[in-house]
Amino acid sequence: MIRPQAPRSVTKTRAKVRPVASRGKPGAAPKSQESGGTDGHGISPLAPAAQKPLPPVAGVRLASAAAGIKYSARTDVMLAELAPGTQVAGVFTRSKAPSAPVDWCRTKLARGTARGLVVNSGNANAFTGQAGKTTTRAVAQAAAAALACPLSEVFLASTGVIGEPLPAEKITKVLPQLCNGAVNESWEAAARAIMTTDTYPKLATASARIAGTKVTINGIAKGSGMIAPDMATMLAFVFTDAAIPAAVLQDLLSDGVAKSFNCITVDSDTSTSDTLLLFATGQGRPHPRVTRASDPGLADFRRKLDAVLLDLALKVVRDGEGAQKLIEVGVSGAKSDASAHRIAMSIANSPLVKTAIAGGDANWGRIVMAVGKAGEPADRDRLKIAFGGHVVAEAGARARRYDEAKASAAVALRSVKIAVDIGLGRGRARVWTCDLTEGYIHINGAYRS
Amino acid sequence: MIRPQAPRSVTKTRAKVRPVASRGKPGAAPKSQESGGTDGHGISPLAPAAQKPLPPVAGVRLASAAAGIKYSARTDVMLAELAPGTQVAGVFTRSKAPSAPVDWCRTKLARGTARGLVVNSGNANAFTGQAGKTTTRAVAQAAAAALACPLSEVFLASTGVIGEPLPAEKITKVLPQLCNGAVNESWEAAARAIMTTDTYPKLATASARIAGTKVTINGIAKGSGMIAPDMATMLAFVFTDAAIPAAVLQDLLSDGVAKSFNCITVDSDTSTSDTLLLFATGQGRPHPRVTRASDPGLADFRRKLDAVLLDLALKVVRDGEGAQKLIEVGVSGAKSDASAHRIAMSIANSPLVKTAIAGGDANWGRIVMAVGKAGEPADRDRLKIAFGGHVVAEAGARARRYDEAKASAAVALRSVKIAVDIGLGRGRARVWTCDLTEGYIHINGAYRS
Repeated sequence: MIRPQAPRSVTKTRAKVRPVASRGKPGAAPKSQESGGTDGHGISPLAPAAQKPLPPVAGVRLASAAAGIKYSARTDVMLAELAPGTQVAGVFTRSKAPSAPVDWCRTKLARGTARGLVVNSGNANAFTGQAGKTTTRAVAQAAAAALACPLSEVFLASTGVIGEPLPAEKITKVLPQLCNGAVNESWEAAARAIMTTDTYPKLATASARIAGTKVTINGIAKGSGMIAPDMATMLAFVFTDAAIPAAVLQDLLSDGVAKSFNCITVDSDTSTSDTLLLFATGQGRPHPRVTRASDPGLADFRRKLDAVLLDLALKVVRDGEGAQKLIEVGVSGAKSDASAHRIAMSIANSPLVKTAIAGGDANWGRIVMAVGKAGEPADRDRLKIAFGGHVVAEAGARARRYDEAKASAAVALRSVKIAVDIGLGRGRARVWTCDLTEGYIHINGAYRS
Repeated sequence: MIRPQAPRSVTKTRAKVRPVASRGKPGAAPKSQESGGTDGHGISPLAPAAQKPLPPVAGVRLASAAAGIKYSARTDVMLAELAPGTQVAGVFTRSKAPSAPVDWCRTKLARGTARGLVVNSGNANAFTGQAGKTTTRAVAQAAAAALACPLSEVFLASTGVIGEPLPAEKITKVLPQLCNGAVNESWEAAARAIMTTDTYPKLATASARIAGTKVTINGIAKGSGMIAPDMATMLAFVFTDAAIPAAVLQDLLSDGVAKSFNCITVDSDTSTSDTLLLFATGQGRPHPRVTRASDPGLADFRRKLDAVLLDLALKVVRDGEGAQKLIEVGVSGAKSDASAHRIAMSIANSPLVKTAIAGGDANWGRIVMAVGKAGEPADRDRLKIAFGGHVVAEAGARARRYDEAKASAAVALRSVKIAVDIGLGRGRARVWTCDLTEGYIHINGAYRS
């Protein structure tokens, strides 16, 4: 059941990203530097350039540990300790078979306050029946005791194999170490501890102003396969030191997700564990009180939050299992935005489109096919398709100025842009996916065993 | 634009299927024996055993020719000449971007009579704009002239690359040769002429009794990728010598398709060209008149027609691009049959389920995921999942008697059976797919170029 461990190259290549302690204290060298979540295929060629360490977020303290849940010689449990009064919002998978931690978070979200977040990789605690519920409760109880907070203020997430029982002790045994401040780690270390098939840790940051006061937004995410979020993808956690009530956070988050995580797909497979939580500690510099998402004072914060969410979502796609190319699909001229979104997703989920891009083939006929199968209003004779700005098809046929060399050049890039105009209305959407390569097959033919 | 030709082994292996002339006349050696539609990956390991030549169907005369539309050294145009008075029914792709021949057939179907069917491979004549329409009309006119029949009695189908203009002359130049009885070929030769990425020709036959009178049903089909029929798959043509009015044929066909072609998927990509036509020549032995699909005299015919349709559909799945395993997904206990079908298709279209099976991994957690993402009523804690009869999960968790060796043995077979009980109602469905392998990526990364 153990997957091949990451080759040394992972550690080496990423070593240029220097870890820092999260609240300025020089912390222990993160264990996760010695680990990785790849399957031997190396880091995605679409991995973003090394980014600067994330700044601290007042009121958030991070720690991670190696609990040996599934992997060896790497961290797999992460704790975020949150200042009292921290507000929380969340979105979850729409799967009818959600994981035990998703069930747990849903019921706890009603109160809107959080003191701790415990995340493990290696086991999703999904479809684990009564045993799974018992595990979530036991982990939450141990965390609540260690953090001296109510049970309802502990949030949980798990990612990894589905259906494998997850003994609570695996996690509870490392909780004291995590809670007692033995480690105070970097955001990168936290992002590494939640990786599964990811080939690099996913982080994003922004600073925003709320009515002139500077606040910080940091986020981490994991995800590489089983990515077709119908709410959020796999796991993502965003933290801010702003003081924003839970109800307002929820509105901001739901809006932002619609334009980010719900616009990505790797393989059309929606996870049982999708969880996106947004925490606001209120421990930053004081700013005027906000009471509604539409508060003009939140305009910049909303923009920056959206940017962080999109940044994280794109980092998930860039690490799509086996991905060699990032594909942006823009649809305009649909009957409505929702219709444009469904058409864009039909293109982004088409194995034939994705294999053509993988093969460097500007096969726009498959785009026509994918538009046609979406089931949305479309008129063959009004369709217009472009690769990287070069129009390849229009008015129901190959474009007059079609140039095979130009079209091929556009799909030879690491980043491929497909634009489709439906020609019927003003609906627009933009989604992102990756190509479908043999790497995906390699990885998923042997994930569990 | 030329794909690699079939290796010699294709011809050799299939050579044991002896061609026969369709109306008893010893015909010319079919050219298609020298051809093949593979991409160099050889014949599917799931190919059915060589079958006996199909019997003739009175009133149907077949011919094929090598027109050099895209392939070299193989047949690519097929003609079926039908006796006067032949009745016809059809179902087509629900794509919003249907091919020009699909548009043509739809308008011609209203009259319900047919004298000729012209099919080409190598070019789908889809998304070819006004030029595509001009081509269909020119081909139909040439065929109508050669067959001395009204334009409305000529049916057309094309399969191959989308978006590439198809000059009518390519086809019209071989029509005289086809119509003038120069060749009178076997059903296998006809099935070969319509192949694209298929690795073997697809044929099925049955004899049925209508009120005691024996009639024959023969069918041919092609299809290997872009298979997620939302009505019919790619191309399939079924012929009978029975005398059945078009309206009755249509009812029989629509019912049969719901249980066959609409229950298969290779890659979730619905073709622009899906066409299934059913012809009844009425040239067999006289039988009592039938006026409704529910006529008791048609009970056996209906059963046998359904069997032919399912046989052809399964032969398409068995030739799924890159397929190494046939997967049957049975869903029971859903809220309704339609709900069961959607859940079954969610499983059958899941890349993660299909790659797990390819890898011989009894990863039932991915079945849970696929049930969960279907969006249909389901209750995690009532789900029951079995591989090859061995129950692996029940009551929301791994089954007590779960046996990894048994589960693995079930998915190691060429034919894998997945059974899912939703535990909520009496809805049932059964669908078929194949595994997702590197072969699919190989084939589709280089199909067009």
